[in-house]
Amino acid sequence: MRNTFGTLFTLTTFGESHGAAVGGIVDGMPSGVTVNIDDIQHELNRRKPGQSNLTTSRCEADQVELLSGVFDGRTTGTPIGFLVRNTDQNSADYESIREVFRPSHADYTYQIKYGVRDYRGGGRASARITLSRIVAGALAKCVLRSEGISIKAYTSQVGEIKVDEDYRKFNLASAELNAVRCPDELKAQEMEQLIKRVKAEGDTVGGVITCVIKGCPIGLGEPEFGKLHAQLGHAMLSINAAKGFEYGTGFEGCIKRGSQQNDSFVPGVANNISTLTNRSGGIQGGISNGEDIYFRVAFKPVATILTTQNTVNKDGRPVSVNPKGRHDPCVLPRAVPIVEAMAAMTLLDALLALKSEQF
Amino acid sequence: MRNTFGTLFTLTTFGESHGAAVGGIVDGMPSGVTVNIDDIQHELNRRKPGQSNLTTSRCEADQVELLSGVFDGRTTGTPIGFLVRNTDQNSADYESIREVFRPSHADYTYQIKYGVRDYRGGGRASARITLSRIVAGALAKCVLRSEGISIKAYTSQVGEIKVDEDYRKFNLASAELNAVRCPDELKAQEMEQLIKRVKAEGDTVGGVITCVIKGCPIGLGEPEFGKLHAQLGHAMLSINAAKGFEYGTGFEGCIKRGSQQNDSFVPGVANNISTLTNRSGGIQGGISNGEDIYFRVAFKPVATILTTQNTVNKDGRPVSVNPKGRHDPCVLPRAVPIVEAMAAMTLLDALLALKSEQF
Amino acid sequence: MRNTFGTLFTLTTFGESHGAAVGGIVDGMPSGVTVNIDDIQHELNRRKPGQSNLTTSRCEADQVELLSGVFDGRTTGTPIGFLVRNTDQNSADYESIREVFRPSHADYTYQIKYGVRDYRGGGRASARITLSRIVAGALAKCVLRSEGISIKAYTSQVGEIKVDEDYRKFNLASAELNAVRCPDELKAQEMEQLIKRVKAEGDTVGGVITCVIKGCPIGLGEPEFGKLHAQLGHAMLSINAAKGFEYGTGFEGCIKRGSQQNDSFVPGVANNISTLTNRSGGIQGGISNGEDIYFRVAFKPVATILTTQNTVNKDGRPVSVNPKGRHDPCVLPRAVPIVEAMAAMTLLDALLALKSEQF
Amino acid sequence: MRNTFGTLFTLTTFGESHGAAVGGIVDGMPSGVTVNIDDIQHELNRRKPGQSNLTTSRCEADQVELLSGVFDGRTTGTPIGFLVRNTDQNSADYESIREVFRPSHADYTYQIKYGVRDYRGGGRASARITLSRIVAGALAKCVLRSEGISIKAYTSQVGEIKVDEDYRKFNLASAELNAVRCPDELKAQEMEQLIKRVKAEGDTVGGVITCVIKGCPIGLGEPEFGKLHAQLGHAMLSINAAKGFEYGTGFEGCIKRGSQQNDSFVPGVANNISTLTNRSGGIQGGISNGEDIYFRVAFKPVATILTTQNTVNKDGRPVSVNPKGRHDPCVLPRAVPIVEAMAAMTLLDALLALKSEQF
Repeated sequence: MRNTFGTLFTLTTFGESHGAAVGGIVDGMPSGVTVNIDDIQHELNRRKPGQSNLTTSRCEADQVELLSGVFDGRTTGTPIGFLVRNTDQNSADYESIREVFRPSHADYTYQIKYGVRDYRGGGRASARITLSRIVAGALAKCVLRSEGISIKAYTSQVGEIKVDEDYRKFNLASAELNAVRCPDELKAQEMEQLIKRVKAEGDTVGGVITCVIKGCPIGLGEPEFGKLHAQLGHAMLSINAAKGFEYGTGFEGCIKRGSQQNDSFVPGVANNISTLTNRSGGIQGGISNGEDIYFRVAFKPVATILTTQNTVNKDGRPVSVNPKGRHDPCVLPRAVPIVEAMAAMTLLDALLALKSEQF
Repeated sequence: MRNTFGTLFTLTTFGESHGAAVGGIVDGMPSGVTVNIDDIQHELNRRKPGQSNLTTSRCEADQVELLSGVFDGRTTGTPIGFLVRNTDQNSADYESIREVFRPSHADYTYQIKYGVRDYRGGGRASARITLSRIVAGALAKCVLRSEGISIKAYTSQVGEIKVDEDYRKFNLASAELNAVRCPDELKAQEMEQLIKRVKAEGDTVGGVITCVIKGCPIGLGEPEFGKLHAQLGHAMLSINAAKGFEYGTGFEGCIKRGSQQNDSFVPGVANNISTLTNRSGGIQGGISNGEDIYFRVAFKPVATILTTQNTVNKDGRPVSVNPKGRHDPCVLPRAVPIVEAMAAMTLLDALLALKSEQF
Repeated sequence: MRNTFGTLFTLTTFGESHGAAVGGIVDGMPSGVTVNIDDIQHELNRRKPGQSNLTTSRCEADQVELLSGVFDGRTTGTPIGFLVRNTDQNSADYESIREVFRPSHADYTYQIKYGVRDYRGGGRASARITLSRIVAGALAKCVLRSEGISIKAYTSQVGEIKVDEDYRKFNLASAELNAVRCPDELKAQEMEQLIKRVKAEGDTVGGVITCVIKGCPIGLGEPEFGKLHAQLGHAMLSINAAKGFEYGTGFEGCIKRGSQQNDSFVPGVANNISTLTNRSGGIQGGISNGEDIYFRVAFKPVATILTTQNTVNKDGRPVSVNPKGRHDPCVLPRAVPIVEAMAAMTLLDALLALKSEQF
Repeated sequence: MRNTFGTLFTLTTFGESHGAAVGGIVDGMPSGVTVNIDDIQHELNRRKPGQSNLTTSRCEADQVELLSGVFDGRTTGTPIGFLVRNTDQNSADYESIREVFRPSHADYTYQIKYGVRDYRGGGRASARITLSRIVAGALAKCVLRSEGISIKAYTSQVGEIKVDEDYRKFNLASAELNAVRCPDELKAQEMEQLIKRVKAEGDTVGGVITCVIKGCPIGLGEPEFGKLHAQLGHAMLSINAAKGFEYGTGFEGCIKRGSQQNDSFVPGVANNISTLTNRSGGIQGGISNGEDIYFRVAFKPVATILTTQNTVNKDGRPVSVNPKGRHDPCVLPRAVPIVEAMAAMTLLDALLALKSEQF
């Protein structure tokens, strides 16, 4: 369905950038789970605009209100409705683009598909919409945490600046200590400088986020069309500005020979079996094998740049556009919690499916 | 659902490599479409083993039987059941791996997930299963063709050998003239030589397939979770051995600045609007914009190599495995029609959704 | 999915009787439809408590707020989030049943299924939750009206009092003129008196609602599992207190011979074909045939009665329960708009499916 | 989806009455379940034509072939494809109705919806299609049996002949001892005589099937749209010729007062809680409460009668039709196993959902 994600644990979302509110409904949340609203708000704050001078100056409290499904601090198994009111819309900034299609935005495709669009702040196509995903992801994380599953994403590339070393070399938690969310301190500084330089030029820059999942049970994912990496890929590619997804050794591993790519099984601790290497990225035949799951998501540079661009208007006539509005020079830092949220939802959904299979 | 793909145009599949048959049910096929069984068989033949000396020597007729949904040569709107009998199984080849987990195969994860597995020929995890996709894709292509939509995939990389130039430089139909399915004749020869060399060494090699879709109407794909590229990504990542997906400028475009990445809109022919460049890959805001859609899919080297490897058995004890059975040294040539089939199904599904939206 | 109804036009709901709010998300609403908030509020008012002295004295404004999906008075094709705040909860009335399972309520089954429940006002099992359905139904009606499809339900039986004549004998719109919503004026008075008498006794009474749909195109509904009457049946049986569903001549027609039950086709007006009789209830082979669709839904008497009943508590020990709280002596009058809303959603969903099939 | 039933345990079907075969794919079958092909064939034989002189003389072996998903006699968790070849089609019998719409058949609605139809033997609308449901139901029963859940349906009414007493009065297994499948021996004889008389007149007759489910755990079914009785109702109403569904005291209970309808909870055996009466039919708030589930399904008389009827042809011109072909005078006896099969699938689906909820 269009605005619903998942099968057993589902999120359905609504909202436009400059509408009354954005929000959603989480269905399939297990009952009896203790929910701390601060945990959810903490995740929203990681995505919130205005955290640092690398992000947009739009100022939103992004205060979530849970409307149902939680009673006396615990989930009841019924759907959890929630919303976040929009408060700092400067819709006047968007009057100039009412009839104009901004390059590489969704203005044109929405207009043709629907015949009408809310042009203010990108409407439904705004990345602001992703905060519903953060809320659902935070709820999913509550359950995953109690099952011993952890998820950590970080910025591994901004423009040309790339973390060269493997995720195992870093304390991933340390990514939260800098504004770009990169666990490699030196690279983090270079990335920050690059983003500031690009911002000063009125331009934007893209990059890559890496995500690592630890503690997964064996058996998540389904054969054929529900392969775990296909579900993760779908989840990640549904994030605004995502252009690519790869897991394990990804595109690079495809250059290799089978003899260089295969992971040998070896006896593991406590009766388990593990693999000597993990080029498979924790997924074999579409099903988790108990090793770390890791993947990378490519994000394009934000389409809104603060220089004059040529485009056309609704009548197909050439015009130039010089956007106002407040935008991020680089989405990566704020996309890190979104990647985690989508991973959390995907994993919980797969975990519920696995439970249903165990007779 | 586990073994169903799509929402309005759906394929549900069944079958194991060495079972009685593989097949499926296509639901949502528009009625009144002329179906030529030879067109379907032609696509199956493109995927069939034994087409060239680059592929496995398993010899299957792969003759499809349509069981329903077609009457007097035309579709009736009812589901199309079909099957292909398995005929050339050498199940004895697999007795040695009954209790052994082959490296980077699905043996281990299936065993743990289900507690039982059909170990013969990889069972359900065999790429042989994809022939159901070919049948459904061929049916989808019938409809797309009449709507002016064409799909062409080709091998753009094998190991280190890579087609450097853009797809627009080639006559893509010519890819079918060589065994690797690459439209760049020189590279095709290099790829062939590489595959033969790798095969001689008992090894395997991976690569990349590029796919180009022309003639799409504007409006395919849905906002949020049904973005067209997310659906395509899911489809492609569900193919055996797929490790990555990117569309438009993909991972490379993420290094760029917004000013280098944006596509300017320009007045098009006959009232349409088009873009000067197409870095977006024909999709903006998750919705097709009428330009060519193109994407790339990474495939890992086949896990079965003809050298002795270390692994463990069901009891977790170290053993060595030296597989018999017949395998491809490189899946790319035979994966080309599978990529096309999955793209065709995804597009027809999106097209049916678009029809339902047009009041 | 648990809390989602529909395939192409979907409603996902949330909310508990005494929670912060009840609401939902409508997805798949066609774009460009003019939405008048008063039309939606009008439908909510038909369901609202306190309309007459036949209903509960709980006093709720039931004022709906649309949060997204409507721009400049027209739908945009994006999801429509909405909510209604709960304002008149007397949760203290329910303290006494915190640990007690009321007879024929959902208290026990929810407690065992989820291990926890919001016992206040019936929580999620309260009929208050249906107001989300009213909102979605009102939106669906907007579209159906413009397609020439009308839906009218009415109370055809309360306890022993039954409308004997066929729906064609009445001006169905006149049902709205009395408190029980019955188009037979005399029977309406008898029903009112019965409900008052039952109420005075602290008891409750059930009945039957009949619903008539006119103007359907031929072709709604899908063969096999998506038969139109199966979809309607599912929709109706999902309404609180519903115990049965029949369409056309229903249970009574089953006593008949084929020669008494069959509807002869006859030439209709303007090239159409119609049937001489309509025992089929407008649906043949699961697909609408253009005749009036009509069906009946049975509702049990409300479980909350104002006399002492024997039951058990959480520990399984016998206790007596004498409920406070405010309740309807008969749900029928307020269930009429709910039946219409569910029918509207079902039909629009089927209509969108039909559009997707028309190439 | 059109031809798929269920969410976690799903059946997708294909096939036409006079096509090559009918069959389907069962997905979500738990792994490790022992499958005895004779058990499945036994259920098919209960539905098979020609069991007695009360049924059609079409002679089909209805021999099922399992094509996948079972290995060494046990399910593997992968989809189970199966088919039954059609062998005794007399398609020539149907040439006369190629252009004619038989009264109260699906000929007309299929023709208008799809623009084309397989008119032979009713095509996809034939009750022959239900044998796929029998196969899936037999598989579901294997699992339910091991969970202690039993399902038994029986003919409780044929025309005016009605079993007056409650199901608890009978040994339901004895229903299989007579041709109409009624556990009340005397009524069974009357029913048989009625069917023979009706058959001799070239006419047909309808009736009611009652189904009783014992041993359900508490917690099956989901609030709101997935209420267990709504799912059962959907399942039953999707069976050919079904016109109504009621559970518990159904339509009759709606005449009653709340004080007459409520079921008091009482302490049960071994810590459980049970109800003194079971007017609720084992379902409260849409969720099973551990008591017997029972419901009734109304079936109309078969539309094919062996007397001349007036109708119209494709051009809308009046013609008379006098069908050849072989038909049942009463579907009830052969519908009994179909009702059981649909109940089995619904329950297993709900059981898998319940498993996924139990953390």
